Amino acid sequence: MENFNYYNPVKILFGKGKISEIGKLIPKGFKVMITYGGGSIKKNGVYDQVMSALEDFHVIEFGGIEPNPHYETLMKAVEIAKNENVGFLLAVGGGSVIDGTKFIAAASCFEGEDKWDILAKMAPVHAALPLATVLTLPATGSEMNSGAVITRQETEEKLAFRSRHVFPKFSVLDPTVTFSLPKHQIANGVVDAFVHVMEQYYTTTQDVEIQDRFSEGILKTLIALGPQMIAAEQPDYQTRANFMWAATMALNGLIACGVTEDWSTHHIGHELTAFHGLDHAVTLAIVLPGVMKAMKMLRHDKLLQYAQRVWDLDISQPGAADQAIAKTEQFFNDMGIKTRLSDYGIGIDTIDRIEKRFRDRGEFALGGIDDVNVDNVRVILTSRL
Amino acid sequence: MENFNYYNPVKILFGKGKISEIGKLIPKGFKVMITYGGGSIKKNGVYDQVMSALEDFHVIEFGGIEPNPHYETLMKAVEIAKNENVGFLLAVGGGSVIDGTKFIAAASCFEGEDKWDILAKMAPVHAALPLATVLTLPATGSEMNSGAVITRQETEEKLAFRSRHVFPKFSVLDPTVTFSLPKHQIANGVVDAFVHVMEQYYTTTQDVEIQDRFSEGILKTLIALGPQMIAAEQPDYQTRANFMWAATMALNGLIACGVTEDWSTHHIGHELTAFHGLDHAVTLAIVLPGVMKAMKMLRHDKLLQYAQRVWDLDISQPGAADQAIAKTEQFFNDMGIKTRLSDYGIGIDTIDRIEKRFRDRGEFALGGIDDVNVDNVRVILTSRL
Repeated sequence: MENFNYYNPVKILFGKGKISEIGKLIPKGFKVMITYGGGSIKKNGVYDQVMSALEDFHVIEFGGIEPNPHYETLMKAVEIAKNENVGFLLAVGGGSVIDGTKFIAAASCFEGEDKWDILAKMAPVHAALPLATVLTLPATGSEMNSGAVITRQETEEKLAFRSRHVFPKFSVLDPTVTFSLPKHQIANGVVDAFVHVMEQYYTTTQDVEIQDRFSEGILKTLIALGPQMIAAEQPDYQTRANFMWAATMALNGLIACGVTEDWSTHHIGHELTAFHGLDHAVTLAIVLPGVMKAMKMLRHDKLLQYAQRVWDLDISQPGAADQAIAKTEQFFNDMGIKTRLSDYGIGIDTIDRIEKRFRDRGEFALGGIDDVNVDNVRVILTSRL
Repeated sequence: MENFNYYNPVKILFGKGKISEIGKLIPKGFKVMITYGGGSIKKNGVYDQVMSALEDFHVIEFGGIEPNPHYETLMKAVEIAKNENVGFLLAVGGGSVIDGTKFIAAASCFEGEDKWDILAKMAPVHAALPLATVLTLPATGSEMNSGAVITRQETEEKLAFRSRHVFPKFSVLDPTVTFSLPKHQIANGVVDAFVHVMEQYYTTTQDVEIQDRFSEGILKTLIALGPQMIAAEQPDYQTRANFMWAATMALNGLIACGVTEDWSTHHIGHELTAFHGLDHAVTLAIVLPGVMKAMKMLRHDKLLQYAQRVWDLDISQPGAADQAIAKTEQFFNDMGIKTRLSDYGIGIDTIDRIEKRFRDRGEFALGGIDDVNVDNVRVILTSRL
């Protein structure tokens, strides 16, 4: 285990009916801006619950935050927040709305001329508007962490920032809110959470017993519940509750304690979204089996541990490592997600562009560990054609 | 899963050398009172590391906090903290020192006449002196939670309180600090952490997938590492690091999310400490197999899950539930802890006194769930003679 610091002050309100409690948690007298995406919250009753809980507040709205939230859109919200003297942001949505709201919070207090520097130059964030979330789509874990990923449409760039100032003050996780989600969004959420765990688990770090056991527990839970949710005719509260909590635990910093993380699957996947607009989770499902295979020898012990503990494979038999990779890909397929580049009409020319982009940016290690680098991105992606 | 709120703002500094960073985390200008126990920190170098890290602060000391910290002792510290205008408390020790320091923090700001009311009347704590910890004995989890257990010598009472105001601001977990611990203290710590998990896991709650997997992961880690630490001639850093983190995770609120907890083993065990001065962990090792057996039918599914996932037993075979209980007791024995009342010269007269005490106090449910109650405490303890 490596040395680490851990800090996560997000208050979680979990369960049916919890939205009604949020009014007590926002300081009185603040003007609240609620942020949301395409407006599904106005159809499924979440918006009404939120507005009812905020009846004592002056509330303004900012809707229309896209999946892979756009810098250009968010800057409009920053302008409004400033002009309207907004004191508190409440993101009502999934990871994109929450990530976007974190950027609004940070950019609203950022003193530099160009707010894009927060992402492009990793300019330090010294303050942010207080924010909280009502999660509608379990997937990204953004509701309980301090990171965000933002896309600049103009330049097809997708970049991340992180600051303790954008930890949500609280997040509401009400499993019933997920009942109206289309199945493919549930599938995306399951795959997203699964790959979050893998980026922290399938690495070079030794001797992290608790973190490994917790990671394996989240993976086993997703493997058990994912197909149930896809097959179910009616959403089941307990299944959704366990999925929701699993997705939050997958990326709240806990399983990363003392671990060298490797976010290469995300890093490569982001380029597929940037060039082809694929859903984030779909890109992860395509790329992960390639990274697993490419790192098979270098991370062999961890791969065998994964085979044994997560898939209950007999690792005394030859081929257990390959079987574990195959089972992982099959799991994504079972969730209704195709896992080959060719399934999406993507060919060698995109691989060329992605490799060139990494080289042009001067990026060598793609995810935090040297072994997945620009020299093998071609191998990884070619294995996914 | 039941509805829950979760909040844990404790900052963790984990790893070798982390004590040197504490000076940066305490507000400048505060007078700091360091609290400790019997003085082992002056022999093993921890005191020197702490004092060196605090060289820019005015530091006063309060030593001599006992195992099962005494109200009477702690009240002396409250007096000193007030007279000396102490602004920050730093507990350097194990669970007793940390629990005691939480009480000092709360009592120093408590407006009521009688500070004992915090424990006896559960009087609400509205403020506390800020406190932090340097953990020297992994066991109780107090370094990352908001609870404390205090003993009043005069009346042989052992009572608990909880307040968000006594969450440590930060806790330092340096595994090397545990290297000088005697083996029996390591054993006590392992058993203490193990039973903490069981009180949150072996309950009536259904449908808590993540919490169960995390609990099972902590238990498996303790089962793997405990005997290694007892057998090892020299302490191994990674083993101690994993044990330290396991003990913290066992009682920081995480595995209790959405769960009805049952602290009956602790509740009964406290009386054994009060009457006979047994080590806290020893009382837990004695009582837990009795509670498990008494609840065998009512919590049969969970017991079988435990048998299968934690002990790798084949639950299609008869007797798996009993085997799991036997293996649990054997594990405590393997850690060098005897698990029968008669091993400590305790007989039926103590069982009479304990039952009478619960009845006199009018306590029915002993741990949060009705099924373990004063009517079966005699059965539980008799099975442990």
